[in-house]
Amino acid sequence: MTAQTAETALTGQSIIAGRSVAGAGRTVSGVDPATEEALEPAYSLIDEQQLAEATAAAAEAYETVSRLDPETHATFLETIAANIDAVGDEITARAMAETGLPQARLVGERGRTVNQLRLFAAVVRQGDHRGVRVDPAKPDRQPMPRADIRQRRIPLGPVAVFGASNFPLAFSTAGGDTASALAAGCPVVFKAHNAHPGTSELVGRAVADAVASCGLPAGTFSLIYGPGRSIGQALAQDPAIAAVGFTGSRAAGTSLMAAAASREVPIPVYAEMSSINPVFVLDGAIAEEDARRTLAEGYLTSVKGSSGQLCTVPGLAFVPEGEAGDAFVAAVGEAASSAAGQTMLTSSIAESWQSGAAQLGEQAGVEVVGRGADGETQNAPAPVVFTAGSEQFLANPALHEEIFGAASLVVRYRDAEDLIAVAQKLEGQLTATLQLAESDHDVARSLVPVLEQKAGRLLANGWPTGVEVGDAMVHGGPFPATSDGRTTSVGTLAIERFLRPVAYQNLPEDLLPEPVQEANPWGLTRRVDGTIVPAD
Amino acid sequence: MTAQTAETALTGQSIIAGRSVAGAGRTVSGVDPATEEALEPAYSLIDEQQLAEATAAAAEAYETVSRLDPETHATFLETIAANIDAVGDEITARAMAETGLPQARLVGERGRTVNQLRLFAAVVRQGDHRGVRVDPAKPDRQPMPRADIRQRRIPLGPVAVFGASNFPLAFSTAGGDTASALAAGCPVVFKAHNAHPGTSELVGRAVADAVASCGLPAGTFSLIYGPGRSIGQALAQDPAIAAVGFTGSRAAGTSLMAAAASREVPIPVYAEMSSINPVFVLDGAIAEEDARRTLAEGYLTSVKGSSGQLCTVPGLAFVPEGEAGDAFVAAVGEAASSAAGQTMLTSSIAESWQSGAAQLGEQAGVEVVGRGADGETQNAPAPVVFTAGSEQFLANPALHEEIFGAASLVVRYRDAEDLIAVAQKLEGQLTATLQLAESDHDVARSLVPVLEQKAGRLLANGWPTGVEVGDAMVHGGPFPATSDGRTTSVGTLAIERFLRPVAYQNLPEDLLPEPVQEANPWGLTRRVDGTIVPAD
Repeated sequence: MTAQTAETALTGQSIIAGRSVAGAGRTVSGVDPATEEALEPAYSLIDEQQLAEATAAAAEAYETVSRLDPETHATFLETIAANIDAVGDEITARAMAETGLPQARLVGERGRTVNQLRLFAAVVRQGDHRGVRVDPAKPDRQPMPRADIRQRRIPLGPVAVFGASNFPLAFSTAGGDTASALAAGCPVVFKAHNAHPGTSELVGRAVADAVASCGLPAGTFSLIYGPGRSIGQALAQDPAIAAVGFTGSRAAGTSLMAAAASREVPIPVYAEMSSINPVFVLDGAIAEEDARRTLAEGYLTSVKGSSGQLCTVPGLAFVPEGEAGDAFVAAVGEAASSAAGQTMLTSSIAESWQSGAAQLGEQAGVEVVGRGADGETQNAPAPVVFTAGSEQFLANPALHEEIFGAASLVVRYRDAEDLIAVAQKLEGQLTATLQLAESDHDVARSLVPVLEQKAGRLLANGWPTGVEVGDAMVHGGPFPATSDGRTTSVGTLAIERFLRPVAYQNLPEDLLPEPVQEANPWGLTRRVDGTIVPAD
Repeated sequence: MTAQTAETALTGQSIIAGRSVAGAGRTVSGVDPATEEALEPAYSLIDEQQLAEATAAAAEAYETVSRLDPETHATFLETIAANIDAVGDEITARAMAETGLPQARLVGERGRTVNQLRLFAAVVRQGDHRGVRVDPAKPDRQPMPRADIRQRRIPLGPVAVFGASNFPLAFSTAGGDTASALAAGCPVVFKAHNAHPGTSELVGRAVADAVASCGLPAGTFSLIYGPGRSIGQALAQDPAIAAVGFTGSRAAGTSLMAAAASREVPIPVYAEMSSINPVFVLDGAIAEEDARRTLAEGYLTSVKGSSGQLCTVPGLAFVPEGEAGDAFVAAVGEAASSAAGQTMLTSSIAESWQSGAAQLGEQAGVEVVGRGADGETQNAPAPVVFTAGSEQFLANPALHEEIFGAASLVVRYRDAEDLIAVAQKLEGQLTATLQLAESDHDVARSLVPVLEQKAGRLLANGWPTGVEVGDAMVHGGPFPATSDGRTTSVGTLAIERFLRPVAYQNLPEDLLPEPVQEANPWGLTRRVDGTIVPAD
């Protein structure tokens, strides 16, 4: 029903440098995971030759896109946002049908997507990300004069972005990676996730229309549908591609890392992969009955929201042994038991979740704390929370694995020393959360330095799901949470990962690019001789 | 003779976390390349078990070193510099004996090394590299309140640094990579280059003494002597190591890249490898006889200085066809013919140069423009300049290869179009240089965007050798010039490559690290809600 509106408009084709192109390969269709019904139209998949057209057009567009003036550049990003808003209801309807995600979540996700584009437009206008540094000449310096040296960051080149299944908008066609690459001045070749092809087309058209109406080269953006693995590898290995943005599984992410490393010219891969987002529940946080109940309910809300299909879902909670801990776990069990399953994104994701949860349940020393009810639709398995002891957790790597969906493991710890020991054994994470009261600060103070080594974001008395898009956000972390912990995929800092520094020594003013000209025509804040000099 | 002074003091042992340690393996000795005489003492090489002691001590030191207050941290760097100055003459004498480099060069290189440490100390005190961002809470924001989110950069962890043969001070024990890693707050395990073991020990002791006198954990710095390839691979694959800094050959650099990528937890490798540093001579620069002569002499000075053993030596010059170009090439030939060979660093480097230069000379269409005289010492081959046409250059990859030493290739081009075509075919470079007059600006304006894609630093009317250590410098560039073009190995920006961002969401003030505390005890400049707010 909801898909009807969109059907009329959708073509089932890729958009290669502004042209609608039928793929030369087989077709795939979106599927409503709540009903298993296929959605029209079928999408034809491109082959490697068609891919090469997209990457060649991106390479050609680079020369223009990489040197847009700030106003044109920012307006382009804002036009994408406006175009998305203009077809907002159609996008929501199609995305609901393709993903099973609820309307409110998708409306919120669309808001985040367009707000992100507008925030990045503001960064582009302001220009600090260009990293301009000026060391003026010192002709009289002894023993050697100093030349005039200027530095700025330039865009890396065309970026391949892979859509994520779990954020059909915010980590898909015009999502974080696309927005940050375009804001950096990099053309984008976007590979749609085959689980939401119609949503991708609606948004892809919004981007392509913005490219055209802003007078940019058509190759600035392409949206392609392809057979996941083969076209993904070809894209990462295409000589025209200078960087990769990816959100998805550890297997797919590491395979892209290997492909990029094996190129004649290796390129950066920014893959956001797997994280179990540990929550450290300290004694003071569960000392009182009310607090325990609130915390248990908050935990389950975070675990089951979007059917647990969020990168930052808390898949692991450390809870103290003893009476208060027992009471908290009992409250978690109650909350879990009353939770209902929600439709997952695809039947294969639901199957993976089922098998992952089943395997965890079979591990020695693992017990079920609470299990909810299956949802009424297809692919809506019951949320479940398990428990185990810290010794089991330390001994068994299977207890550290991400189960993508609404499942979580409560690990009981003996004391602060035990807690720090298990924290030190964790793999890299996107987030680490402390639940604490004033009386827990001493323990927390010992934990923080350990957690900084393990995660990209530390939280206190909140839940890691719901990632704020701002200047200070880090959505990243050490491997295997991401392929490259030196960066973030959410927030304005993400723009910088698609840039690299270039120095200009003694170049005449009229040969210098605008950002480093002495006249500073773009009014940029600059670091002059080591000191920040704000624009006038 | 010069080695005598040092001999009395040198132990021939590694310094592992402050202890002088005899290696369990075979020994190597420094060799005076001018005479082929071995220098005392012999250095015993450590095995993998001894290496593990160094990396474990570095991991243990991290907790302290990573959170030094700015004053202690800066004083540590300054103490290293002072300790090096205190044994300056001894270092110069030993380095002359081990490397064959002239005194003035080594005195200058030592000055650069200590100035760099002092510059980095100033950065550490000032603190902008910590990248502090604050997004204050907005409790009343609709539809959702915003939490307080703060970001800073933290040190990656222990860094493995490999000494380079060609800069026994500035890219060795306390050189760029060590200085930037220590400035970032990362402990360093330094693998000495076996071509200058005594110089490494003298400087290593200066660093270790500074560690001790500043009260830092002994594992903050280790200096190890090991069998190059095997201990290098073990170091890059050691689980305690979080990043690698390397300057050397493309073969060794790519082998470290592969080792780091194949780890269970991959780590960044910053390898500075190979570059031929093209010079683009435009018509106006050689229109007049005097200018031609000055330019030809400057070119040869840059080619033959330090026997051409600099990363930024101009191994390639593009010169227009026609009379002025012919006259310029003739002047280059004269300058080359009157140049005398200087001692190279080692006999194997001299042999590699001989074979590389011989191979280049045998390529179809390549001719000798001028060849100087062999020097009077061992391993001092005559500088040589070759020439070829742009068609040969485009057709033959052998003409693009680095020959480490005093050799250069002049490629003749037909016109601006031809010049841009050959520029587009270049591999990644550290530098690209324009020699031009006012009349050449139009051509240069077309070249600049091409060269930005190829190099980390663009110069006009100067020579790429002699790398300024400052805030705006970029000593980096696309692969194969480096393994990671997003960074620099010279200048203050180098500190940032050993850092990664971490966000703190809603953490109580007393649990926040000092750099992100609301009280701002370190007086840092911060980005608050997207706007830079200077410290009081």
